[in-house]
Amino acid sequence: MRQSTLFGSTRKKAPKDEVSVNAELLIRAGFIDKVSAGIYTYLPLGLRVLTAIQNIIRKEMNDLGAMEIRMPALHPKEPWEKTGRWSKPGKEVMFQFKGHGDRAYGLGWTHEEIVTPLVKQYVNSYRDLPFAVYQIQDKFRDEPRAKSGLLRGREFNMKDLYSFHADEEDLERYYEKVMQAYGLAFDRCGLVALVTEASGGAFSPRSHEYQVVTPHGEDLIFSCHHCNKHQNKEIVTDTHCPECGTEREEQKAIEVGNIFKLGTRFSEAFHATYQDREGKEQLVLMGCYGMGPSRIMGAIAEVYHDDTGLMWPVSVAPFTVHLLQLGTDDAVKKQAEEWYGALTGAGIAVLFDERDLSAGEKFADSDLIGIPYRLVISKKTGEGAELKLRTSPDMQVITRTEGLKRLSHV
Amino acid sequence: MRQSTLFGSTRKKAPKDEVSVNAELLIRAGFIDKVSAGIYTYLPLGLRVLTAIQNIIRKEMNDLGAMEIRMPALHPKEPWEKTGRWSKPGKEVMFQFKGHGDRAYGLGWTHEEIVTPLVKQYVNSYRDLPFAVYQIQDKFRDEPRAKSGLLRGREFNMKDLYSFHADEEDLERYYEKVMQAYGLAFDRCGLVALVTEASGGAFSPRSHEYQVVTPHGEDLIFSCHHCNKHQNKEIVTDTHCPECGTEREEQKAIEVGNIFKLGTRFSEAFHATYQDREGKEQLVLMGCYGMGPSRIMGAIAEVYHDDTGLMWPVSVAPFTVHLLQLGTDDAVKKQAEEWYGALTGAGIAVLFDERDLSAGEKFADSDLIGIPYRLVISKKTGEGAELKLRTSPDMQVITRTEGLKRLSHV
Repeated sequence: MRQSTLFGSTRKKAPKDEVSVNAELLIRAGFIDKVSAGIYTYLPLGLRVLTAIQNIIRKEMNDLGAMEIRMPALHPKEPWEKTGRWSKPGKEVMFQFKGHGDRAYGLGWTHEEIVTPLVKQYVNSYRDLPFAVYQIQDKFRDEPRAKSGLLRGREFNMKDLYSFHADEEDLERYYEKVMQAYGLAFDRCGLVALVTEASGGAFSPRSHEYQVVTPHGEDLIFSCHHCNKHQNKEIVTDTHCPECGTEREEQKAIEVGNIFKLGTRFSEAFHATYQDREGKEQLVLMGCYGMGPSRIMGAIAEVYHDDTGLMWPVSVAPFTVHLLQLGTDDAVKKQAEEWYGALTGAGIAVLFDERDLSAGEKFADSDLIGIPYRLVISKKTGEGAELKLRTSPDMQVITRTEGLKRLSHV
Repeated sequence: MRQSTLFGSTRKKAPKDEVSVNAELLIRAGFIDKVSAGIYTYLPLGLRVLTAIQNIIRKEMNDLGAMEIRMPALHPKEPWEKTGRWSKPGKEVMFQFKGHGDRAYGLGWTHEEIVTPLVKQYVNSYRDLPFAVYQIQDKFRDEPRAKSGLLRGREFNMKDLYSFHADEEDLERYYEKVMQAYGLAFDRCGLVALVTEASGGAFSPRSHEYQVVTPHGEDLIFSCHHCNKHQNKEIVTDTHCPECGTEREEQKAIEVGNIFKLGTRFSEAFHATYQDREGKEQLVLMGCYGMGPSRIMGAIAEVYHDDTGLMWPVSVAPFTVHLLQLGTDDAVKKQAEEWYGALTGAGIAVLFDERDLSAGEKFADSDLIGIPYRLVISKKTGEGAELKLRTSPDMQVITRTEGLKRLSHV
């Protein structure tokens, strides 16, 4: 894409009330725009990152054999009353309102109340189990304070997976499989997400969170560097590791995913049952598994930046190569156009800065936007243009041949 | 995909309160599930159709040079007060509510109040114009009656494009370009959408709607079959064509898109201006262009079905080929698996019915789901299996070689 046609340019400053690192950088670099606290518009660059993250997650979910569906955001009150969550925690976290005819609605912040009655219609026998469905969809939460940019939105994007099982053993097996898929997905997003024990529910004493350690995380976790095990502060009773006794480190972290064994909590409420091999009616067991693409985008911004701007991992970058044409000399223009054609022709996503701006402005914008590979064409570079990889302030230099070879494998 | 793993099977009956043809068929065939009046879940088959429609539209928008963004669904009250639409028509059509701290929100049913303040930040000079942004996003409307399935949802999917111009001539030129793109998009979806004059606004005396004629449409249009011109009943003063005097036909139709010249209605409210060539401050001119992917899906279901079920155009079908294995004879199984491998290997989307059901049940399901090509493997067909195209009750027979050649061009 030619940068002169890109909607959403870089800015000197983020809005004054924006205190989070991720939102400040993402706004200044032209990835998102703030509509109101915790509510953002994704500009073209930001939407490309969000979509890349969603597609990484989608692939892992499909590889698990889960089927993608799309549930609504607008929920009638009735199913939420059946589980008792309309009033608690509904009154605290859910946007609730009435429409014409005094019909009561709430905005979905999770979807057990929708997915369980749906699934109940299709499950009759143990032969219909196990299976899993997921969606990638926007959710809403009435956050009293929304000061952390994409880390705590009033509107946010979620992937939520729900699995259905005949017995605990099968649920346990699937839970382990999901953990592997989560590991792969976070890895592909460039995040080290620590599997962290957290409080569970009625069915299971523990759930697991995926926590990314950063200085601005809102969660606190205790890490044993000997056992490589982590617990959310909420369940920590001692600063020493319960397994080896080592003193643990307290770290700030961002929760980018969580997985729960729900057991029969929801199948009981909706009477979602199946007939077992003996023809006896049994409650379906459930698991639920969340992962937040918009929060992941915020976490990546928190982790991957330096003083000059963002530094996207290739897998989620809005473009793979930032091609900078410095000056408007005919030979430079021609060479830049040739590179643009060659790279895009090879299927590589290129942002081509052909704008009539100074070299200083172009470099500053490029540093701020943080596209992983940079190719500068100027009178000085002549034929010897080199691709540079933006992984550190001292950018790694790659020769042209090396670079093209490498990029064609991205 | 193997049909035994598909979530959402066919049903004998739709919910009793579902009176619309599209919802009744889509629910019975396992494309959608009804959560509440006007609120649906897209099951895997339905989500595939919706995604195909969105991608057809996305391509046309990108070809126009418009940039994709994603605005929120949760809107603060303030910008809606600036345009006066918080109270009118807000109180009638918008879900409005309060969150913590007494903050007032509404759910977006259109996005002029979000896009205009956004764009204002990036437009300074006439050199920044024209440009256009669009989104594909879920919207909400407090419909008093929502009895038409996907044709009138309380939650529905929309593509909304907004264009920004320095003068009327440029807006007019772009409006014409959008009309061409709309024609291509509807055409690719398999719909004949009539360009229909409708009432305009303060800026322009007329807007245009895209209307699909069907017996269950909620709109009434007057068509002159001589001039091939159409008007919405709301602006019709005479049953004769104003151009040639021919008696016009009154037809029921579904509105699947509408386009508007907004002029300065919103740039005035938000003071969105640019400096012209003479350095004078001018109001930006705007156009807005809507198209509803979920409503298009409903309209296709209304148009493309017969007594036995749905009949999807290839371009939006959930799968291209329905492969039916009849019986569990080893030779049949082997041949069916070979076909499945060959077709999917050629990049063709196949739903493979390998379930242990009778031929009658499989044919009935296949008729109801309406995948355009069908390939039946049974003992009887032996090596002579033939692809059939489901465009009419008498399915068109295609030989194996012809079929594969044809499909590889789909």
